[in-house]
Amino acid sequence: MPLLEKKLIQQIRRSARAATRTRGSVVTGIGDDCAVLRLPAGHEMLVTTDCSIENTHFRRDWHTPQAVSRRCLTRGLSDIAAMGGDPQAAFLSLAVPNDCPLEWIDHFLQGLLGLAKEFKISLAGGDTAASPDGIMADIVVIGSVPRGKAILRSGAKVGDRIYVTGDLGHSAAAIAALRQTHSGWTQCQTFRPQPRVAVGQYLRRHGLASAMIDLSDGLSTDLEHICQESHVGAELNAEAIPRARESAGKKRIVLNVALDFALHGGDDYELLFTSSAPIPNKIAGVRITQIGRIKRSAGMRLTAVDGRSRVLEAQGWEHFTKNL
Amino acid sequence: MPLLEKKLIQQIRRSARAATRTRGSVVTGIGDDCAVLRLPAGHEMLVTTDCSIENTHFRRDWHTPQAVSRRCLTRGLSDIAAMGGDPQAAFLSLAVPNDCPLEWIDHFLQGLLGLAKEFKISLAGGDTAASPDGIMADIVVIGSVPRGKAILRSGAKVGDRIYVTGDLGHSAAAIAALRQTHSGWTQCQTFRPQPRVAVGQYLRRHGLASAMIDLSDGLSTDLEHICQESHVGAELNAEAIPRARESAGKKRIVLNVALDFALHGGDDYELLFTSSAPIPNKIAGVRITQIGRIKRSAGMRLTAVDGRSRVLEAQGWEHFTKNL
Repeated sequence: MPLLEKKLIQQIRRSARAATRTRGSVVTGIGDDCAVLRLPAGHEMLVTTDCSIENTHFRRDWHTPQAVSRRCLTRGLSDIAAMGGDPQAAFLSLAVPNDCPLEWIDHFLQGLLGLAKEFKISLAGGDTAASPDGIMADIVVIGSVPRGKAILRSGAKVGDRIYVTGDLGHSAAAIAALRQTHSGWTQCQTFRPQPRVAVGQYLRRHGLASAMIDLSDGLSTDLEHICQESHVGAELNAEAIPRARESAGKKRIVLNVALDFALHGGDDYELLFTSSAPIPNKIAGVRITQIGRIKRSAGMRLTAVDGRSRVLEAQGWEHFTKNL
Repeated sequence: MPLLEKKLIQQIRRSARAATRTRGSVVTGIGDDCAVLRLPAGHEMLVTTDCSIENTHFRRDWHTPQAVSRRCLTRGLSDIAAMGGDPQAAFLSLAVPNDCPLEWIDHFLQGLLGLAKEFKISLAGGDTAASPDGIMADIVVIGSVPRGKAILRSGAKVGDRIYVTGDLGHSAAAIAALRQTHSGWTQCQTFRPQPRVAVGQYLRRHGLASAMIDLSDGLSTDLEHICQESHVGAELNAEAIPRARESAGKKRIVLNVALDFALHGGDDYELLFTSSAPIPNKIAGVRITQIGRIKRSAGMRLTAVDGRSRVLEAQGWEHFTKNL
């Protein structure tokens, strides 16, 4: 076995064993042909996989290794949140080139295991490999949900209100700043999206959401997914969309990020959901904002501040976060 | 979204939907934030991930796309087999460079879905990404096993017999031939390892195996895993090890592959298991061979044809199948 890979495996095993295991669901973790998991009785299993590739999803000169691994695991946890599920275990396939410093891998694992601990899940397995060029991390998160209770994208009904958690556009604005000035590195470093697991579970327990998705590709694209799967249309109110805030100019005045970042920027990891019932302003400490309504007519529309309505195209993801 | 990735996602969705879904375990497949799976009552979940990287695990000029994807999925199915489990669903994370022909991806998916169909599982989800350089495929296979019945690596007892399924060394011999002559391509093309799922299930149902592992790294390395996890040693009989056969020389005489290929060659995907009971010569149509005994003293030994016993070092994997 190549030295790097041997070291990598040892490091992952050591880190994973040292990390707290507070879930009873993992019966057998790292060290056998498969992990063995035991889910709560009457529950179904949720599975999500998310692949992160160097220079496609992250850059080593822009992102700290902790930020990279937190983002990897956040993507998976956020998918579990979007079903109203309970995360149970994570799996990591990690391929690294021979010249990757072991310190980088150490910090990557620290970030991953730190976030796993916050959500009381363990790293239960995975795979390692030498990569000819560039780092690749594929994360699988397994979750559970009471039988038949997963919140799908396909349940939105005409007349439902459309809601989002938190603020949108932070990540896209940070990437745009990096592109322009190469000085925004600390924004990426400190940006720590919070997977909205508790909000998703609240909505599921109280039967409040008719459809739900997490905002990973960007609001316009993710809303289109709900519309397509539910065979409905949507109308958004531009003024209502909660925008992240950033400091700008020499005097570091705090402003809302541009509307386009909130509409089309990806990597928000907030929840977008629809409901026939009014929703509290805050759930599990997270602000909830109504941003529009589900409509019968296909397609999406956006009502601007001046009251004019225009067609909203799905433009998420490709513009901002891809092809760093 | 970049054109290649859009096409890739469309292709995977189309292929996955077209493929037979004969398992009731997948409640919601591709097209939501997570897949939803329902396991049989009283069962535990098995999870395995296997990462395959171009020029580390396969080469496009040596392996057909079908051979690459079959090998990817075989690795996962073989891990499920090694626990005595029942495969339920597969997930694929696929990253491809922009210059990868769509035809290659088509054939890759054909191979994957063909093997999935043989084992009555569906492709229930995954992720796609653009890769700056080289193809990367990470496969997750989910399986199930009756609660508490998974066959682990840690159960081997002093005095147990050691068995393997099938023949060993075919893949390592083929790779060696490719290295020497670059003429053995068809061997790689036609080599179709069969995950021993039915054998694993038989052994589990009849409570016959005390420990089990699949031969992916090579006999010497995988036997060492059993010894370490079970805190025992092992003695193998060189003459008893079933070697694959290959045709050699101008007259294409059929010979056993070299003992070293059977001892240390990886990618066999046969099962290695220990048992206190005698085992039938054939299970589910697959030949079973006793190759040694579990010993109290730590370490592994090999008794040669001349009756002499020497120390057996774990040398699997690194010599033959890595760093193509």
